Order: sequence, then structure tokens, then C-alpha cells
Amino acid sequence: MLADALRTVIDFPKPGIQFKDITPILRDARLLREAVDVLAAPFRAVGVTHVAGMEARGFMLGAALALELGAGFIPIRKWGKLPWNTHSETYALEYGTDHLEIHQDAAGPGDRVLIHDDVIATGGTARAARALVERTGATPVGFSFLIELGFLDGRALLGDALPIEHAILV
Amino acid sequence: MLADALRTVIDFPKPGIQFKDITPILRDARLLREAVDVLAAPFRAVGVTHVAGMEARGFMLGAALALELGAGFIPIRKWGKLPWNTHSETYALEYGTDHLEIHQDAAGPGDRVLIHDDVIATGGTARAARALVERTGATPVGFSFLIELGFLDGRALLGDALPIEHAILV
Repeated sequence: MLADALRTVIDFPKPGIQFKDITPILRDARLLREAVDVLAAPFRAVGVTHVAGMEARGFMLGAALALELGAGFIPIRKWGKLPWNTHSETYALEYGTDHLEIHQDAAGPGDRVLIHDDVIATGGTARAARALVERTGATPVGFSFLIELGFLDGRALLGDALPIEHAILV
Repeated sequence: MLADALRTVIDFPKPGIQFKDITPILRDARLLREAVDVLAAPFRAVGVTHVAGMEARGFMLGAALALELGAGFIPIRKWGKLPWNTHSETYALEYGTDHLEIHQDAAGPGDRVLIHDDVIATGGTARAARALVERTGATPVGFSFLIELGFLDGRALLGDALPIEHAILV
């Protein structure tokens, strides 16, 4: 079971946080395959042309999911990491703000982009990712998370216009 | 052709560097599939149990390659990013040093690990990655790079004990 393989690390990266460590899933060939299958299933029939994954943990299952869906992969990165012309979005953190970027030519009109991250917490990162995809002219078609932290209700921030899927609910 | 899709960005991330931007390959479903096929081909018959990929660009094709080979994926990360107990290696940069880490339980005796990164330049990062894999007790079985910067001769640093493969030679 995917959920059984998750490892909770107390006080990482700082005191009070119970970090969900996904590496026991990734390192197990059978669980990696199962995770990709579960994440792909709700989106096999919706014509996904690209999967966009968030730096850095969203790059791993995101790229594997893209391969599985026969789609391309788009990295969404922190500020200053993408080498070409970018769109940028600022989003709120618990304390202060952060920035995410996408290449301006990552996708365009007619493209259908599935947004992936390892975890949805408050939903701020995912909302910024959707805005970035929209700025390329492409159409976001859904959200795919390995883990949804239900008690933080990030779903509320994303609204109900697009499907929001998870493999593991915590 | 994979090589034709590479984009060279001048003076990124600093003056004098000609950065090889792999995002035009990743975003194109056909080229992503081609890259994974080319990277997987030399290692299909050697019993790879895990692909280890280096933060952060090595996470993308590395995880897709793991899925393709029916292997698990191991992230090798910069210092302080992995939540659990780690092995750490220090390696030389052009100016100063840097640190890479692997989870102590990422792999173990009997496991056969393919090391992946997007680019091999001087080879210092790849050499540190091999040392990290060895410290888990696993056996490194080869190196797989999307791009080899031949003029920097990183191959010399890695020696000839293991196969070193690339999809694109620059």
C-alpha cells in the first residue's frame, strides 16, 4: 500500500512540522509503478498534452507521470532557476512570500496541462502553478498530488472548476 | 533529433557560461519518450534495481528512466534537503566546495544502481554520487547522462570501471 510506505519525520525541516517523506515510495520499483498508475488513472481520457511539476519533489513523479501519459514535462521552478524567458507568480507563505516561474514557451494555446506536486498543503503553490500555466495560453485540466493533507483544506483555495486528485489522503 | 532541440542560453547562470537548456526536450512528448528510450537502451540487460538522480534537473529524466527500467528512484540531494538519516559527500567546485547527500536506507547490498544526471561537465558531481551509492552498500552499475560536455573530459575523473553513456555529445 502506498500510504503504508510513507514515512513521517518529526520536526523537519523545522520544529513542529511532521514531514511526509516520499522516498520509501520512490525507491521501491513496485510502489513507484503503483503511484504512477494511480496518479495517471483519472486523467488518461482527458487528452493531457503536458504535465507541469513543481520544484523539486514534483519533478520526480511529475516526469514519470508525463512519460506514462504520453505527454511532455514542464518544470515550474523557483525564482532565477529557469534559463530562458519566464512568467513569474508571487504567492504567500506562512511568513512572507515566494516566487515561481515557468518558461514562456513551455506550452501554448491548445495545450492541456495537468499540474502535479508531491503534496498539497494550503494550496498556495498549486494555485500559483495554475496561474503560470494560464499565462502561457495553455489550459489547465486538473491537479494531481501524491499526498493531500486534508486537514489544511488546500482544496478550498483551488476552487472546484478543475478535478483535484490524490493517491494518498492524510 | 534530441541534439537539435537543445537550447543554448548565453551567460546563464553567470557571464561566460553557455547553458544547455533541456526544457525543449522535456516539454515535447515525442522527444521525452525518445530521450528515455536512448538512455535506457544500454542498461536494459544489466539488472538495474534503482536509478539515482541528482538534484534538481536529474530528478526529471532520472525518475522517468527508473519507471521505464522497472526500477526504483533515489534522489541525491544538496545538503539539508533529505529528511531522514543521510550519508554525505563533499566535492570540489570551480570555486569552493559543495555537499551531496543520500538517504542511508536508499539502497543496500544486492542493489544495482544506475547514476543519472542531465549533464556531465567536470564529473565531480557524478563521482560524489558514485561514492554515495557505494556507502549504502549497493553496487553502482553505470552512469547515464542526457548531455556529455566532451571538452571538459569529466569521463577522465570517473575512470573506466563503469560504463558512461550519453544521449547527446556536445
